Amino acid sequence: MSTSFDAALASFQPLLPLGVAYSGGADSSALLLACARRWPGQVHALHIHHGLQAAGDAFEAHCRATCQRWQLPLVVRRIDARHAPGQSPEDAARRGRYQVFDEVLQQEWREAGVRTVALAQHADDQVETLLLALSRGAGLPGLAAMPAHWQRGGIDFARPLLGVPGRALRDWLQAQGETWVDDPSNTDLRYTRNRIRHELLPALQAVFPAFRDTLARSAAHAAQAQTLLHGLACDDLQQVGNPPVIAALRALAPERQANVLRHWLLSVHGTTPSAAQLKELQRQLQSCTTRGHQIRLKVGLGYVQRRGPVLGWYN
Amino acid sequence: MSTSFDAALASFQPLLPLGVAYSGGADSSALLLACARRWPGQVHALHIHHGLQAAGDAFEAHCRATCQRWQLPLVVRRIDARHAPGQSPEDAARRGRYQVFDEVLQQEWREAGVRTVALAQHADDQVETLLLALSRGAGLPGLAAMPAHWQRGGIDFARPLLGVPGRALRDWLQAQGETWVDDPSNTDLRYTRNRIRHELLPALQAVFPAFRDTLARSAAHAAQAQTLLHGLACDDLQQVGNPPVIAALRALAPERQANVLRHWLLSVHGTTPSAAQLKELQRQLQSCTTRGHQIRLKVGLGYVQRRGPVLGWYN
Repeated sequence: MSTSFDAALASFQPLLPLGVAYSGGADSSALLLACARRWPGQVHALHIHHGLQAAGDAFEAHCRATCQRWQLPLVVRRIDARHAPGQSPEDAARRGRYQVFDEVLQQEWREAGVRTVALAQHADDQVETLLLALSRGAGLPGLAAMPAHWQRGGIDFARPLLGVPGRALRDWLQAQGETWVDDPSNTDLRYTRNRIRHELLPALQAVFPAFRDTLARSAAHAAQAQTLLHGLACDDLQQVGNPPVIAALRALAPERQANVLRHWLLSVHGTTPSAAQLKELQRQLQSCTTRGHQIRLKVGLGYVQRRGPVLGWYN
Repeated sequence: MSTSFDAALASFQPLLPLGVAYSGGADSSALLLACARRWPGQVHALHIHHGLQAAGDAFEAHCRATCQRWQLPLVVRRIDARHAPGQSPEDAARRGRYQVFDEVLQQEWREAGVRTVALAQHADDQVETLLLALSRGAGLPGLAAMPAHWQRGGIDFARPLLGVPGRALRDWLQAQGETWVDDPSNTDLRYTRNRIRHELLPALQAVFPAFRDTLARSAAHAAQAQTLLHGLACDDLQQVGNPPVIAALRALAPERQANVLRHWLLSVHGTTPSAAQLKELQRQLQSCTTRGHQIRLKVGLGYVQRRGPVLGWYN
């Protein structure tokens, strides 16, 4: 069942003080105000000003005025959301945001003793994330969508509203007589997300009224499976070694071999093979039975090559 | 990329002779005719007459007439698609169909030496299966959707058209000047599938034109992960024993413990815990540190109970 905003807030038990990411949009406004009322004097807001967005100054002004009215301490940081060549705008924006969190947690929020950071993504965002993953043919890490809790540098991060429909947040905020501005965020992504929101979600709602809950449940199954596969990949990488010994790789069942190869390439070399590249690499490993057998294969931005008994990745 | 019907047929390399499940609908008509042309004298049709369906006799007559015209051997079997209490109509129909396959493979098709059975599900069916899985919050076995190949009783089963949009099959059949009847199948399910087809797929098509390919790729990732998790669960069940020793279960990481518990309940007791039941069982295992600690918990149609050092399931 979708959770009401009140129920979601009631079951949110963060370590205090709490930092809240506050864009000025409806979702983070609702989260910030509700937390501020529940834990007076313990809530700190952070607004990230996206330098490239024309309306950025207006968003910042709105957030400053609102926090003053609510008597909340507010930190404002500016990021340049331009993405590097080869980087997706979404990735660039996400990295930029986490860099800001890290900085603020080291500076203003360190003095304040902030122990938890709350983010306002809700059930519609979660469904959109899963649909975006499906739209690019993602594997389990994508199908797992957004986690509700994680740790980063000793700080808890939480998304307490992942079970709450976006509509419920706006209704609650309106009932408080509060206003908001439109979330400033990446425009390309907004375009796709808007199309999902306006064309796909109504169709899902019509055919599967419980889709927010059921899609979230499938995402949670994927997340659980991914945690298991990640743990197994770590164990298996210890087993096959780094760089991986070809004979040890060949001893694994095909799916388990794929799992550890993906983990090796990402965790050691920061690269992700396409499904076709991984399949071809496994095919070549399969036929790699003689001392003279060569392997050289494009994977991500570099090459996987055989070097004697082991595989290496070079770029 | 979606595959053309010709390309899909060209890359289908079954062991011959080939049996084809033939409903009289467009999809199986296209598959049957194309296979019959490619492997003359090697193709056998099977029509399943769904006893409850009013139009069943007309479907059968159409199939008999068409196979006579195409000069193909046809077996007709009748099943009663009524479902038992507690069984879903979809499950009942599926079990009924496989029972017929088994019988025919033991009788008429054994004499003919049939080695492969081909089924006509296509890319739209695959997407619908994945969406249905998401609509009930399924885990990996559901998200894996339909397999393209498997073995059953020494016979290969294949779905060579899983990459072909349904539209391409109908276009091809029309170009051959052939007609078809509407697939007789379960009405409830047809209703949901029809709503997916007419309300959801057009919205997906508008927002994500490549959705057939990308959803299929995500389903394939889920299938690969599921194969791995199943293998791991088999290994772990050997390790914890059957019935499972509580101390051995407690030594596993939570996700791996869930994986082996699910496998134990399904493979040994034929029951599937809900997500909430499994979570509660794991919570009780977590706190089961004393000799006197009781466990008794509803799981599926029965109960999981502690019996000394092990868990049992009773109904």
